[in-house]
Amino acid sequence: MNTFGKNVRVTIFGESHGAAIGCTLEGLPAGFKLDMEALNAFLARRAPGGQGLLTTQRKEKDQPEILSGIQDGVLTGATLCAIIRNGDQHSKDYSNLKDCPRPGHSDYPAAVKFHGYNDIRGGGIFSGRLTAPICIAGGILRQILEKEEGIVIGAHLAQIAQVGDDVFDPVKVSAAALRRLDKKEFPVLCDEAGEMMKREVEAARMSCDSVGGVVEAAVVGMPPGIGDPMFYGLENRLSQALFAIPAVKGVSFGDGFYASMVHGSENNDPYVIDGKGRVRTVTNHCGGILGGMSTGMPIVFRAAFKPTSSIARPQQSISLSRKEVQELRVVGRHDPCVAIRAVPVVIAATALAIYDALREPRP
Amino acid sequence: MNTFGKNVRVTIFGESHGAAIGCTLEGLPAGFKLDMEALNAFLARRAPGGQGLLTTQRKEKDQPEILSGIQDGVLTGATLCAIIRNGDQHSKDYSNLKDCPRPGHSDYPAAVKFHGYNDIRGGGIFSGRLTAPICIAGGILRQILEKEEGIVIGAHLAQIAQVGDDVFDPVKVSAAALRRLDKKEFPVLCDEAGEMMKREVEAARMSCDSVGGVVEAAVVGMPPGIGDPMFYGLENRLSQALFAIPAVKGVSFGDGFYASMVHGSENNDPYVIDGKGRVRTVTNHCGGILGGMSTGMPIVFRAAFKPTSSIARPQQSISLSRKEVQELRVVGRHDPCVAIRAVPVVIAATALAIYDALREPRP
Amino acid sequence: MNTFGKNVRVTIFGESHGAAIGCTLEGLPAGFKLDMEALNAFLARRAPGGQGLLTTQRKEKDQPEILSGIQDGVLTGATLCAIIRNGDQHSKDYSNLKDCPRPGHSDYPAAVKFHGYNDIRGGGIFSGRLTAPICIAGGILRQILEKEEGIVIGAHLAQIAQVGDDVFDPVKVSAAALRRLDKKEFPVLCDEAGEMMKREVEAARMSCDSVGGVVEAAVVGMPPGIGDPMFYGLENRLSQALFAIPAVKGVSFGDGFYASMVHGSENNDPYVIDGKGRVRTVTNHCGGILGGMSTGMPIVFRAAFKPTSSIARPQQSISLSRKEVQELRVVGRHDPCVAIRAVPVVIAATALAIYDALREPRP
Amino acid sequence: MNTFGKNVRVTIFGESHGAAIGCTLEGLPAGFKLDMEALNAFLARRAPGGQGLLTTQRKEKDQPEILSGIQDGVLTGATLCAIIRNGDQHSKDYSNLKDCPRPGHSDYPAAVKFHGYNDIRGGGIFSGRLTAPICIAGGILRQILEKEEGIVIGAHLAQIAQVGDDVFDPVKVSAAALRRLDKKEFPVLCDEAGEMMKREVEAARMSCDSVGGVVEAAVVGMPPGIGDPMFYGLENRLSQALFAIPAVKGVSFGDGFYASMVHGSENNDPYVIDGKGRVRTVTNHCGGILGGMSTGMPIVFRAAFKPTSSIARPQQSISLSRKEVQELRVVGRHDPCVAIRAVPVVIAATALAIYDALREPRP
Repeated sequence: MNTFGKNVRVTIFGESHGAAIGCTLEGLPAGFKLDMEALNAFLARRAPGGQGLLTTQRKEKDQPEILSGIQDGVLTGATLCAIIRNGDQHSKDYSNLKDCPRPGHSDYPAAVKFHGYNDIRGGGIFSGRLTAPICIAGGILRQILEKEEGIVIGAHLAQIAQVGDDVFDPVKVSAAALRRLDKKEFPVLCDEAGEMMKREVEAARMSCDSVGGVVEAAVVGMPPGIGDPMFYGLENRLSQALFAIPAVKGVSFGDGFYASMVHGSENNDPYVIDGKGRVRTVTNHCGGILGGMSTGMPIVFRAAFKPTSSIARPQQSISLSRKEVQELRVVGRHDPCVAIRAVPVVIAATALAIYDALREPRP
Repeated sequence: MNTFGKNVRVTIFGESHGAAIGCTLEGLPAGFKLDMEALNAFLARRAPGGQGLLTTQRKEKDQPEILSGIQDGVLTGATLCAIIRNGDQHSKDYSNLKDCPRPGHSDYPAAVKFHGYNDIRGGGIFSGRLTAPICIAGGILRQILEKEEGIVIGAHLAQIAQVGDDVFDPVKVSAAALRRLDKKEFPVLCDEAGEMMKREVEAARMSCDSVGGVVEAAVVGMPPGIGDPMFYGLENRLSQALFAIPAVKGVSFGDGFYASMVHGSENNDPYVIDGKGRVRTVTNHCGGILGGMSTGMPIVFRAAFKPTSSIARPQQSISLSRKEVQELRVVGRHDPCVAIRAVPVVIAATALAIYDALREPRP
Repeated sequence: MNTFGKNVRVTIFGESHGAAIGCTLEGLPAGFKLDMEALNAFLARRAPGGQGLLTTQRKEKDQPEILSGIQDGVLTGATLCAIIRNGDQHSKDYSNLKDCPRPGHSDYPAAVKFHGYNDIRGGGIFSGRLTAPICIAGGILRQILEKEEGIVIGAHLAQIAQVGDDVFDPVKVSAAALRRLDKKEFPVLCDEAGEMMKREVEAARMSCDSVGGVVEAAVVGMPPGIGDPMFYGLENRLSQALFAIPAVKGVSFGDGFYASMVHGSENNDPYVIDGKGRVRTVTNHCGGILGGMSTGMPIVFRAAFKPTSSIARPQQSISLSRKEVQELRVVGRHDPCVAIRAVPVVIAATALAIYDALREPRP
Repeated sequence: MNTFGKNVRVTIFGESHGAAIGCTLEGLPAGFKLDMEALNAFLARRAPGGQGLLTTQRKEKDQPEILSGIQDGVLTGATLCAIIRNGDQHSKDYSNLKDCPRPGHSDYPAAVKFHGYNDIRGGGIFSGRLTAPICIAGGILRQILEKEEGIVIGAHLAQIAQVGDDVFDPVKVSAAALRRLDKKEFPVLCDEAGEMMKREVEAARMSCDSVGGVVEAAVVGMPPGIGDPMFYGLENRLSQALFAIPAVKGVSFGDGFYASMVHGSENNDPYVIDGKGRVRTVTNHCGGILGGMSTGMPIVFRAAFKPTSSIARPQQSISLSRKEVQELRVVGRHDPCVAIRAVPVVIAATALAIYDALREPRP
């Protein structure tokens, strides 16, 4: 099932080289005026080519067509369906993969699961291209969160290979800072780090290789007490959404794995009352989430991306039919670092989870 | 909603100091003979006191009573309900927490969410005690997985504070090795590391503090092609289950965050055909999951636990009513390191997710 | 899956002769003071024996024990679990049914579905006794609907065999009229019709037979615009809940099947503005539901119950093992007309559906 | 939420006069060769105009475009999305309905629910046109049921106004008989009754009025033991699907409401072993369903349709803005009897429910 959410429900469909990709989106508010220009600008951040040679050289026109749920630019409250037609496909590039699975790719388990009937062209349903409809759905919800609830979501490239960016100040990160990142072609907090990252990516590309990275995201303006205990906590909902993004192999909240190394006296966040009489914490090691619920502080988390599995250098694989080892060369155009274009996808997945939690009926 | 799963459905109920805690479990196979002795032994691993002074000194008798879904020890296929009566409660210990939220605990966001009506005694629904019903449900499913499907789940304490255990060999980890861990009072691969860990925990306890830790788990015997694309991949299901465990702040699969630092040529796992004609990978950096689906290799992942938030040393908090800072001393008996007793809980949560994925109707 | 609802979630568990029956109930409002006396009075209406010889002579003490989700009589907002211990069971009565399925009963398809492992004693999970937990859940929700939303649900025996009661006036039926029915031992609008019905039931009992009946229900005080299009309309939700009651074979709204015989000009309900400026309809052939949504008029519908399938007179069945016809005599104590005790169950099922629809996040 | 199903999931989207209508369909079997010609023939049965003047004179070209989930005519196992572009719309016909709700239509409750933002043109999401995507989804599932499982679904017009067709013999109804109905332009068992029905419809049309009707459906070839207890029984699933069809006001199984009038000795279906050693019932009053599960006998049920609410003759309504009564004339082209074109829609809704139940993991 390609469906996420309980109160807002998103279903993603499409294969990379099929007729179209898209999503349906249920649970939208009637009367909201959608900013199509802002939505297209958001989608452009994910689109290939927007970041020069650092990303794939395929050209996509990811302008969605909205088929339902909207009238004169205003949401009707009905199920929205948006599609993006596919085009510019080099389907012949993928002809040998049915028998010879790419290491690090979903080819082999997918062939088992779908008895060989899955559409393998361009990665089929497992293609990074399927993150475009996530961005449509998340891009719409993000607008609603910002305009109706004052909740702002942003993200930056926290790390590529072993080069780290600055990190969000989990207490002070502001909506303005997140919006500034939105406008950056290469979304980092420290531009010098960004330049080093670019060199890492370029070096990987030149050596027919790829690199991994980390995206750090923040949600600002979240009211306290949102999220449900146990299986529907914010961490559960967010991680369910984030692991839907291809290549994500780890998700952590607040200090995450680092918190496992310290003492409770260091990790607990003391409470304080701010000048406006609001409850705040002095530190925010928990990443704005306690017991699965928002504390009212910024929500801060990280998603780790493995390096792109499609690399041009020869790799060892097997022939499934002949049951023997063979060398594989993956042709086609691929991002040397998926994390870069994943920044808006992380934002979109976050919007899905946050919106779903916010719309949970109150106890 | 305290419910997990689509094909098997687990609902957890109960508050720490209410009448009882328990779970309902739907989607069980009719005719399976439940091994109650093994289930009770599994629950005993989570029960407090089993690990000496390293864990809380409360005494619980976590013997579940199964109210339905079973006849003469055999599952009927109907919804199973199991309960554990509460007892040995020092409810007065928690009297001041309604106004003065404990740092690092769910007290404050819970008070907001439930308008102050939540049962705060012993942590209420947010108590670690609620992991007992997770262990009942997961303990039952684990038996079914092992006996019906040949799938074995195990886990060890991979780290406490900054002391690390050996790690699972993600290619060779065996069912026998996992079963050996089951029998250990302090489940580590390297007993010397275990002794050092114990000293860390004891030191924290002596200084009225607590420490975090990491649990590493493995699933052996998983057939390839299990798991669904995007939102219902194995990583999504596992993380949704794992983040239900109190204090988990990070989840990673295979090399996880480390994979974000390396190149694709290092991270991709080359395919090979083994002596029995089966498809295997030479390495297993991906942790046995690609595209959300099992590769047939061991599934390996980590869950990071923050240090216990309830610590005896004085902390800064606030009075919600008077809107002013005040000092807080948390009394009561608490584990100095929740990760220790969390090992069986991680196994149980894993069983929930794996069983649910296995029972998904095949495409 | 024995689970109903999206915004409130009810899971029913238990077998007739197992340890206990019960339910979990998620999605309750924190802070609501439960009236236990009213709940027990409501349950007593379903309990056997309350209606003299007209119903089964088994004695049940259907006092529920609430295990969670409540503190000092006030809902905490957490998952509520309530159980009723089983007792007074004559399990030997059912010994031959494993091989010889009772006509009209679920024995045969259940044996196929559960491979013979289902608990057949007393009907197991298919027993009418399982309607007791529906009444617990629905009885709690009904209180909330009445006190928090001003919505009142009531029902009466509209027909037994071929004897009909008066029908609800779908325009004028009032909360007061529904409450009056609550207090009646034999809930009919016209007591003369009630006496005739009783004679029909008694005649059936005397001839070792049973009779069917119809329950008509009404929901008063429903605001307009509640219910969702297509698969989650009020009719869909109500029918999903009502067909969970054993022996229900038909559900109709407003004029129901009669509406299929008339013209649109007769069936359409003209709009009018009442003295308080509210939109009303002059007639209410549609039963208060259009397009799956409430019109603000009373919701009126009917549920048809087949005659009790357990009858004492000899019936033709088969031996499943020997594959041959044999005569069957069903022993044990059974209601000659299940519709009588079903009146509160219909009310309870209605409360489940209405509450779930009301709690749907607004578009 | 416009979504149906647990194991197969169907989401319907689109407004009558928006860009397109369509559906997504999750849970399909990989490798099934779709017969597009048969699918289009099935959709043509629902399309307006196929039945002469008896149905609406609008022209629709309901040829679906399948955007995903299919490659070279074979299902890939991925989410299928199919759309039908809208066209030939006379949107101005509906201009006054925003303020003046049509009696018997969803206009008023929809305006309340969606705060006036719903697309009212052509009925928006409440249009009968939205049954086209139900037919796409159900038409696909029906093919799979027939070819993979040997399960055949058929239906006929059992009644229009007060003219009744013959009824299905619930014991002997055959796949061949159901297939014959498929080929009939006016699907009745008795053609004389069909001619009388046509005269009723024509008379209603001539007097600017409409008539109701009943569709009777049968499912042949169903194995025993399919369906789940309580809330997910076959009756629950079927009624949830059937009440999604606009104008359905009643659903009954087997003898339905008639069963409420008779004795248990008349209504129980005695068991017998047939010549092939299979368990059968001599009669089939229960409509092939006991305890929510299939008995292995034909499943037989009825859906009652109210008369078309859009009628040309003047009706009394109100102005919502001015809060006063006014006369309304509904212009536009409407079926005088929705039941006629609803026959394939009932079949499609049945396929949704049956397929979902069949794919439930076995206990």
